[in-house]
Amino acid sequence: MTERRRVVHVDGSSVDGNRVVERPDTLAVEEPLEIRVAGRSVSVTMRTPGHDLDLALGFLLTEGVVTKPDEIVEAIACGDNVVDVATTDAAAARVVERRFYTSSSCGLCGKESVDAVRTRSPYDVSTDGVVVAPAVLTALPHRLREAQRVFERTGGLHAAGLFTAAGELLCLREDVGRHNAVDKIVGWALQQDRLPLTGCVLQVSGRASFELVQKATLAGVPMLAAVSAPSSLAVALAEETGMTLVGFLRGESFNVYTRPDRITSCPSCPERR
Amino acid sequence: MTERRRVVHVDGSSVDGNRVVERPDTLAVEEPLEIRVAGRSVSVTMRTPGHDLDLALGFLLTEGVVTKPDEIVEAIACGDNVVDVATTDAAAARVVERRFYTSSSCGLCGKESVDAVRTRSPYDVSTDGVVVAPAVLTALPHRLREAQRVFERTGGLHAAGLFTAAGELLCLREDVGRHNAVDKIVGWALQQDRLPLTGCVLQVSGRASFELVQKATLAGVPMLAAVSAPSSLAVALAEETGMTLVGFLRGESFNVYTRPDRITSCPSCPERR
Repeated sequence: MTERRRVVHVDGSSVDGNRVVERPDTLAVEEPLEIRVAGRSVSVTMRTPGHDLDLALGFLLTEGVVTKPDEIVEAIACGDNVVDVATTDAAAARVVERRFYTSSSCGLCGKESVDAVRTRSPYDVSTDGVVVAPAVLTALPHRLREAQRVFERTGGLHAAGLFTAAGELLCLREDVGRHNAVDKIVGWALQQDRLPLTGCVLQVSGRASFELVQKATLAGVPMLAAVSAPSSLAVALAEETGMTLVGFLRGESFNVYTRPDRITSCPSCPERR
Repeated sequence: MTERRRVVHVDGSSVDGNRVVERPDTLAVEEPLEIRVAGRSVSVTMRTPGHDLDLALGFLLTEGVVTKPDEIVEAIACGDNVVDVATTDAAAARVVERRFYTSSSCGLCGKESVDAVRTRSPYDVSTDGVVVAPAVLTALPHRLREAQRVFERTGGLHAAGLFTAAGELLCLREDVGRHNAVDKIVGWALQQDRLPLTGCVLQVSGRASFELVQKATLAGVPMLAAVSAPSSLAVALAEETGMTLVGFLRGESFNVYTRPDRITSCPSCPERR
């Protein structure tokens, strides 16, 4: 997942002018992955190699092509950078529909994007009864970083971690793309027959975009926590689906954008946080 | 570009348990934009509204659909979230080719991705004689942040800034997506008839992915500087095209991954930095 390379490091803070050294540096590897359904190309994504089957299956599920595990017949890596997935005919037909949908959308707006995701998800996260204590939440970014070995070396990889409500790490995935790290987790869950991800918290290293909330929705995740800011449409989708969306989870504080009722240190008195 | 919303803020650092307040928060707006060529959908991207024509034109150029300004006949915003671009027939034909290329790629690898971008760019950045002093480079992130008003309020927007070799800001654009902020700059430059962006430095707020180096290449930018890490393929593409790629530009230090000869405080003695 990493590559070594010599770089020129310039440090201007030295008193006697710029200090220039050539030294080795570790880079996060980025390579294209083509995802195919029955030999037909669905997507080319730039990703960090590793867990490619997870990524391909997670992508197909979170984009709504596959709706349940038994629609997948077989997933095969063809060479280093291609995964071909054999699905049921119903799922294969959705590849065409999905393309059609994208290109025929008119009067496109945020509201319609939210509705499209909501109606496409097989899971209702609004009824998920998970409760998480604030102290568990604030510990997650640290646990994620501790579990990440590559990040420390390159500074170039995003991470996504799937946790229980008690803060136990179930799965960690890293990638140059945040959406890929999430897809890898969902693909893992799909193969473990753990979908929907009831009772779980998905923690991501960056910000929360519409795309990440979409992917969490399609996997049935009731709580998404991001280290940075969410976007307006991420919040709108979380509100519409009844997902708890946490942002700016740093140090000992955080913001809760939607469904704060799930965050309490005392489940029997939900007013107390 | 921003939206206000009430959020629940939880702070666990208080001595008497968690301090919970409801307070207003500012979100970066994210909405889909559909980019069409002659009425035909080319892409739907999630973006921060504003400078939509810049974004559409920059996207078409950095993705290789349009290769020069006079291939654009007219660009029209249709409603809030659609831009339709009328082009010459040659450019419109590339939309189809481009789709075909993506879906017919086999044995896909990083090397082929690099070659594809290199051969598609109309500009050769390797011969660009720009020279930038280290002190100018280290000042750029601060200048970018100073020029950004929205970032300070939301923490949710990426920025891209186009600077001269002397550190003068030519154009600043912000977006929830890094690639969109860069496309908005390139679209601005295209409309100002400033392409190729000879002698310029493109500064971005996040990391440097393959996609960003690709976009800089297609716009003829000789130097790309990122606050965070580059990926392996970003470095490979910069090396192949002869672009100077700077990463970890923070405080007074930075790494130079490719073509360090352009960074010197004394152009007549290039060894000195």
